[in-house]
Amino acid sequence: MAAVDAAGEFETIRKLFAPLAHPDHAWGLTDDVAVMPTRPGADLVLTKDAIVEGVHFLPGDPLDTVAQKLLRVNLSDLAAKGAEPFGYLLACHWSPRCGWPEREAFAAGLAADQKEFGIHLLGGDTVLTPGPASFSATMLGWAPKGGSVTRGGAKPGHGIYVTGMIGDGWLGLQAAKGHLHLEQERIAALAEHYRRPVPHLAFGQAVQGLVTAIMDVSDGLIADLGHIASASGVAASVQLELLPRSAAATAWFDSRTDPEVALVTLATGGDDYELLLTAAPSDEPALKREADRQLLRLTRVGTISAGRGVTASYLGKPVDIRKPGWTHD
Amino acid sequence: MAAVDAAGEFETIRKLFAPLAHPDHAWGLTDDVAVMPTRPGADLVLTKDAIVEGVHFLPGDPLDTVAQKLLRVNLSDLAAKGAEPFGYLLACHWSPRCGWPEREAFAAGLAADQKEFGIHLLGGDTVLTPGPASFSATMLGWAPKGGSVTRGGAKPGHGIYVTGMIGDGWLGLQAAKGHLHLEQERIAALAEHYRRPVPHLAFGQAVQGLVTAIMDVSDGLIADLGHIASASGVAASVQLELLPRSAAATAWFDSRTDPEVALVTLATGGDDYELLLTAAPSDEPALKREADRQLLRLTRVGTISAGRGVTASYLGKPVDIRKPGWTHD
Repeated sequence: MAAVDAAGEFETIRKLFAPLAHPDHAWGLTDDVAVMPTRPGADLVLTKDAIVEGVHFLPGDPLDTVAQKLLRVNLSDLAAKGAEPFGYLLACHWSPRCGWPEREAFAAGLAADQKEFGIHLLGGDTVLTPGPASFSATMLGWAPKGGSVTRGGAKPGHGIYVTGMIGDGWLGLQAAKGHLHLEQERIAALAEHYRRPVPHLAFGQAVQGLVTAIMDVSDGLIADLGHIASASGVAASVQLELLPRSAAATAWFDSRTDPEVALVTLATGGDDYELLLTAAPSDEPALKREADRQLLRLTRVGTISAGRGVTASYLGKPVDIRKPGWTHD
Repeated sequence: MAAVDAAGEFETIRKLFAPLAHPDHAWGLTDDVAVMPTRPGADLVLTKDAIVEGVHFLPGDPLDTVAQKLLRVNLSDLAAKGAEPFGYLLACHWSPRCGWPEREAFAAGLAADQKEFGIHLLGGDTVLTPGPASFSATMLGWAPKGGSVTRGGAKPGHGIYVTGMIGDGWLGLQAAKGHLHLEQERIAALAEHYRRPVPHLAFGQAVQGLVTAIMDVSDGLIADLGHIASASGVAASVQLELLPRSAAATAWFDSRTDPEVALVTLATGGDDYELLLTAAPSDEPALKREADRQLLRLTRVGTISAGRGVTASYLGKPVDIRKPGWTHD
């Protein structure tokens, strides 16, 4: 594209992004494209997520964590497909607040996560916008040919499971906004979870043969379970009392007057980036063993049945799910 | 990602984008990822460009042409690598002005160019931004293994060539802004060129074995030639009187008082999306034959020599190139 950022576009690419480029396939970002060989016996897995300042991240968030969140929400999608991440293309829509130090911080966040997840920058674009900053990444990975599980295989009788904790993403957003009244240490832990979610790549790779549907929790457990129910043509019921809660979430939960409302809030909050999956009862022991092996919590939160849609209960009583997805309030 | 566009995100995806999805690899956009087999004997070619309202397209531009421009600037990058386009991922950062009719128009533009270029939508994301709209696409294509030419092979004595016309991109922007005083028909032709550039895919595929460096002209002929000179470690000189000009550009040129300034303006304007290439003198006849066969104009505009940087001349006299790239003025 045309040079729109005379003061910084080429400098940004040459000094900050070129060192992050894939050593073999991106020519130090001196070209507009990346050309790379494919992997025999593997499928190419592709995903692209965008994040906007003031919507998906806060104006005050440090740009290194914004870069990491951008990569991680995309890596989380690859995790659900059991893919091994390879590299990414990046579009930076810099706002006026993104000066050189902010761009340096952004690149430092990319560098840290490239090392953490074994990926490289393959190309992209940087442009200026007078509006809020936004970023998108296209993440590429490789999965064993024909081995990735979709959202469409859940069947009546299958269990519904989640990794990790549910609700820390939403609580983390509240913490980052200064809206939570908890101990400083808990605030910090929640905000960290919101800013730098952990994609469960190894677990996703290990369980593709055991699950019947799998995706990551980004819109909220209830909304995302709705996607699985819809794609599979089944109904899903969640027992809210089973939701796995972190120590910080439990501290917050204990301060609420209505436990049902609190649990629905956690189940619809979104931004958790845990894996949500269904499996036949006979595969539960193997799933649990794999989770134990990886020191990852795996919790059964409900059951698939014949029908349509998602329902929730608390201690055996039906609960009205008023908030079907995260609306960034 | 989280649902940020309660009124329209899922509707937009389901009603407007799902019909555009690749029939085999994108699951009707019900998943966050695309999983696709690779092509034996082919390299994967990837590029990602972003465009911003008010910077790369005009606030008044119809959104169907904005969608087409987005695809075409990316296809133009693939053309330079001789790649056959396959599909793309899309991020729409909708602004408040992007209501349902605008989104319908955008999708109609995508549909038209999917048919034109044989590509499909593979995935992506749609988000809302309070700022101006912006869009990015990651375009994928296949090229014969090891067959793509970089920018780095130009050698002293090689000729410098461009397809089509130079300057119509910049003139088209002026036309679209209403800044040009020409006949209505010429205004319309130039604006069309600006809004819907034509990627030279077949020519790019045909000439990879004949060229020593190749790229598309997006920043402007002079600036892009600078990229080739830099990557190849050579100097490039352009004879401005040789620049191929359309009838509309000639009409504009004839109205200028200073021909040198006018030619530098055309050579630095950008947004042409013509192919810029270098070739050994012995390959010029074959290049010309291929261009003739494709009814495409191919013009030699200069020569590569030992040294560094880009110089220009007009009728034998050196010309100062004051404007090294398009600054969107």
